Amino acid sequence: MLTKRIASRFYPSLGVSSLSASTLKSGDILKKERIFSSSDVIEYSKLSHDSNPLHFDLKYAQNAGFEDRLVPGMLVASLFPRIIASHFPGAVYVSQKLQFRSPVYIGEVIIGEVQATNIRAIKNQYLAQFKTKCFKQGDHVVIHGEATAILPTLAKEQGQSMG
Amino acid sequence: MLTKRIASRFYPSLGVSSLSASTLKSGDILKKERIFSSSDVIEYSKLSHDSNPLHFDLKYAQNAGFEDRLVPGMLVASLFPRIIASHFPGAVYVSQKLQFRSPVYIGEVIIGEVQATNIRAIKNQYLAQFKTKCFKQGDHVVIHGEATAILPTLAKEQGQSMG
Repeated sequence: MLTKRIASRFYPSLGVSSLSASTLKSGDILKKERIFSSSDVIEYSKLSHDSNPLHFDLKYAQNAGFEDRLVPGMLVASLFPRIIASHFPGAVYVSQKLQFRSPVYIGEVIIGEVQATNIRAIKNQYLAQFKTKCFKQGDHVVIHGEATAILPTLAKEQGQSMG
Repeated sequence: MLTKRIASRFYPSLGVSSLSASTLKSGDILKKERIFSSSDVIEYSKLSHDSNPLHFDLKYAQNAGFEDRLVPGMLVASLFPRIIASHFPGAVYVSQKLQFRSPVYIGEVIIGEVQATNIRAIKNQYLAQFKTKCFKQGDHVVIHGEATAILPTLAKEQGQSMG
């Protein structure tokens, strides 16, 4: 506690999870912000061969009851393995559950968050479970789920994290 | 049964699911084949900002016990919404569970398959549940899971299906 208090005085921009620094432990949260642009969605759709008009056609999306074109859910969910791999290069994805709770529109600020819930050593690696969430407008959950990954090490690289 | 037998004599290349033609019903299977290339993986990684070396670095992947560079699991899983949307434009993804059971390597022939398991009318749309699988080498399951989507209609477009 004391360490955390001291650390947050000196590094106020870092989340508590970053302070325990280099070793992942249960409860730690890793985050990343992203805005998906119209060209991200076009590129993704070319790559995935998915031509769902909800992603391109504003009129179609509005007629279906949405405010704007939807970012494909699986593209938004790509934040989770990206966050994990940015801290643990070589991570191997084992499972992912996803509940798409609210639409994500092109241009919205999305925060992806993974929280370690269980870590167990297997041979010389680690099987880690995570709660996985994406938020918009601060605390509005748009994707909710869980992931499991094999991590080659629990030593966190600080790479692209927001803390 | 008779209809199926006659039809499969005249259209031996079509799966049974295609014969019931235009309306989705429980049990129907929709498929799509795909080979993920090295450039698909590079493009996807640029788009998802995922720089996991398992996807690019042959030596790294081999040192980690794999035969070759891995196609990102979420890219392989993009086959599922793509298959669904190609038959049901305007489909809205509600949930997806994914178990990544075996590695998918660049250049492998992958068959994505979704099978309707439950369909229920909600207002003027349909909530459809699917078993979702990807295979390689014929019948070797590489991804196993389930998806739920809201379909604007049960009338199947024949678009990009393999049947």
